[in-house]
Amino acid sequence: MKKRVAIVGVGMSKFGELWDKSLRDITLEAGMYAIFDSQVSGKDIDAICIGNMSAGRFTGQEHLGALAADMGGLGHIPAYSVEAACASGGAAVRQAYMAIRSGEHDLMLVLGCEKMSDVNQSEAMRTVGVASDWEWEGLFGATFPALYAFMARRHMYEYGTTEKHLAQVTVKNHKNAEHNPWAQFQKAVPLEVVMSSGMIADPIRILHSSPISDGAAGLIMCSEEKAKQFTDTPVYIEASTQASDTLALHDRRDICTMDAAVVSSRDALKKAGLTVDDIDVFELHDSFTIGEIILTEDVGLAQKGQGGRILDEGITEIGGKYPVNPSGGLKARGHPIGATGVAQIAELVLQLRGDAEGRQVDGAEQAMAVNIGGTGATSIVHVLGR
Amino acid sequence: MKKRVAIVGVGMSKFGELWDKSLRDITLEAGMYAIFDSQVSGKDIDAICIGNMSAGRFTGQEHLGALAADMGGLGHIPAYSVEAACASGGAAVRQAYMAIRSGEHDLMLVLGCEKMSDVNQSEAMRTVGVASDWEWEGLFGATFPALYAFMARRHMYEYGTTEKHLAQVTVKNHKNAEHNPWAQFQKAVPLEVVMSSGMIADPIRILHSSPISDGAAGLIMCSEEKAKQFTDTPVYIEASTQASDTLALHDRRDICTMDAAVVSSRDALKKAGLTVDDIDVFELHDSFTIGEIILTEDVGLAQKGQGGRILDEGITEIGGKYPVNPSGGLKARGHPIGATGVAQIAELVLQLRGDAEGRQVDGAEQAMAVNIGGTGATSIVHVLGR
Repeated sequence: MKKRVAIVGVGMSKFGELWDKSLRDITLEAGMYAIFDSQVSGKDIDAICIGNMSAGRFTGQEHLGALAADMGGLGHIPAYSVEAACASGGAAVRQAYMAIRSGEHDLMLVLGCEKMSDVNQSEAMRTVGVASDWEWEGLFGATFPALYAFMARRHMYEYGTTEKHLAQVTVKNHKNAEHNPWAQFQKAVPLEVVMSSGMIADPIRILHSSPISDGAAGLIMCSEEKAKQFTDTPVYIEASTQASDTLALHDRRDICTMDAAVVSSRDALKKAGLTVDDIDVFELHDSFTIGEIILTEDVGLAQKGQGGRILDEGITEIGGKYPVNPSGGLKARGHPIGATGVAQIAELVLQLRGDAEGRQVDGAEQAMAVNIGGTGATSIVHVLGR
Repeated sequence: MKKRVAIVGVGMSKFGELWDKSLRDITLEAGMYAIFDSQVSGKDIDAICIGNMSAGRFTGQEHLGALAADMGGLGHIPAYSVEAACASGGAAVRQAYMAIRSGEHDLMLVLGCEKMSDVNQSEAMRTVGVASDWEWEGLFGATFPALYAFMARRHMYEYGTTEKHLAQVTVKNHKNAEHNPWAQFQKAVPLEVVMSSGMIADPIRILHSSPISDGAAGLIMCSEEKAKQFTDTPVYIEASTQASDTLALHDRRDICTMDAAVVSSRDALKKAGLTVDDIDVFELHDSFTIGEIILTEDVGLAQKGQGGRILDEGITEIGGKYPVNPSGGLKARGHPIGATGVAQIAELVLQLRGDAEGRQVDGAEQAMAVNIGGTGATSIVHVLGR
């Protein structure tokens, strides 16, 4: 009988362009809120695991594990960072899950963070490119908007997905983010504004893209036995899975499908003993809106090719059959790379506790997060239950 | 009863300034050698864990996990990187140890890699600085040679350690490296050459410092049951521990002691049920030779302050009571940052198997590796046994 792993606290910094705060400030902030939320004390924390992609390039500082232990005054506890591109946050949650199940640690602080706005746009774009296959994609000018544009254009060609569908994801996610106090863009945008926003890589417009963001998120994770000391409402990780795919988009079997997401979400449901219909709320990685459309198909919320059309039917709205990204998603909550996977889980914990206020999915009991690295070379899935 | 974790294969690339090879080439090379050595097939590998500090800055490529799975043709298996500055390699070994003990993975490829020579010296020094407390140390000009110079000078003042002691570590480790085919400097250096080499941060000379290196190392790690399928000579991880300290040197209780190493080595011996006298061979993190001197004290091979004097007695030579760095250590094997912690373990596996040829410690049955991040903000210790 394996240990169950619980989440007993969540914390977030505000996401946004935080000119007056450093990477240290926001990471400490998210960690402190998670500690307050859980009612653990610093002495209870055995270890720290941090999701971060590229603090070395964005801020000139690595060794974030020891830094976090130091800033938090947490003494000699083990601390380290995990990197899996835009799935670094999910990877940190998964490493902590394994560490607790192994018995090496009993209660951990999991952080995700990125401070992207302190470099200029060109350096930010170059640094984001470290997540692509640099020798075969980035070096030749294929930025992430361009790579996702290939996926979008092909999806439109194969399945009749429209520019309106790409925009509907934005409209939905911004509407949800109106009720998320941590979101970078806490406001709705009308469809026609999205559809006439600047084109950055045809058919991807600026308002189909997640922003450059600063932000951090934190979780307190522990064994089931320990959880009972701190809360009557723990959320459990029912499954944690991960899968990889070729780093370069052009090597894939099909650029309209993220096979790593297909494999990892299928494995997660199997491990949790659930079907997709048992899941009440989803956070799916919408770094570009076509990403959410593809993931709704790959996770099983829609038949392949129908990811656009289900938007017409409101299926992924709060109140629909499969609510997706009640937090606002990467598009509207923001996408500080290493923080995203942790923030997805933080949102779902609030949903399962019934604490998500204006964006609550009523009566949610099971939830799924899908955190993607690059154009789908990494997929990390967590299924949570209360 | 917890699962035991075994190491059944080791592989290394040559360490050095490898102008004609890329990060991909050397990482693949180390992984392939580990696979050949273990006689597992690619299909047996469940997951990949990579130790790397700063591929984003050194090579412009992160997302190394998915890249390694892709390059190795290993399909959809989970893959991710771990970072803890110069202890990134040890952190990768420790993450894999926990993943296998958790039951999530059964057989893993563990890699460590860094390609440091493709940027100029000034950028290399800046990038190494990401492991220090950048805001309080690096930004003010305190490079790693300078920080270790503080430690060395204080150690000389407090305990009478001499410049000759600093040089004797170099002489010993270069002599050992003569017999290590993967070492960057496979040659002895006379004491007087070391003592008259260029001063870089008084009292640290160029030949007291580990070099800028390219290199990769790999291990195949698995559960005890699985190990029996592949080898009659598995090496077991008897303990894996980690501890942190303040990131900045000036915040420490005592700059002549690495408290994180004291804590993690003591914990490791306790978990393994051993005393330091039971350990037959050591790999201790000698990024600067004063580091080895301090670690011999902190691990318990010498009383505090006697780390210099035990060199006069040959205690840490091969054939001495406590052989340290038979591989040549970071000084002579080279120090490709993320590779170092994995290479330490690879060396000790060869020692315990009796396969270390000209540098073999006769009859070695227990071994210890200490992998340090920064000036001691991270310490990761592994005790191995056959």
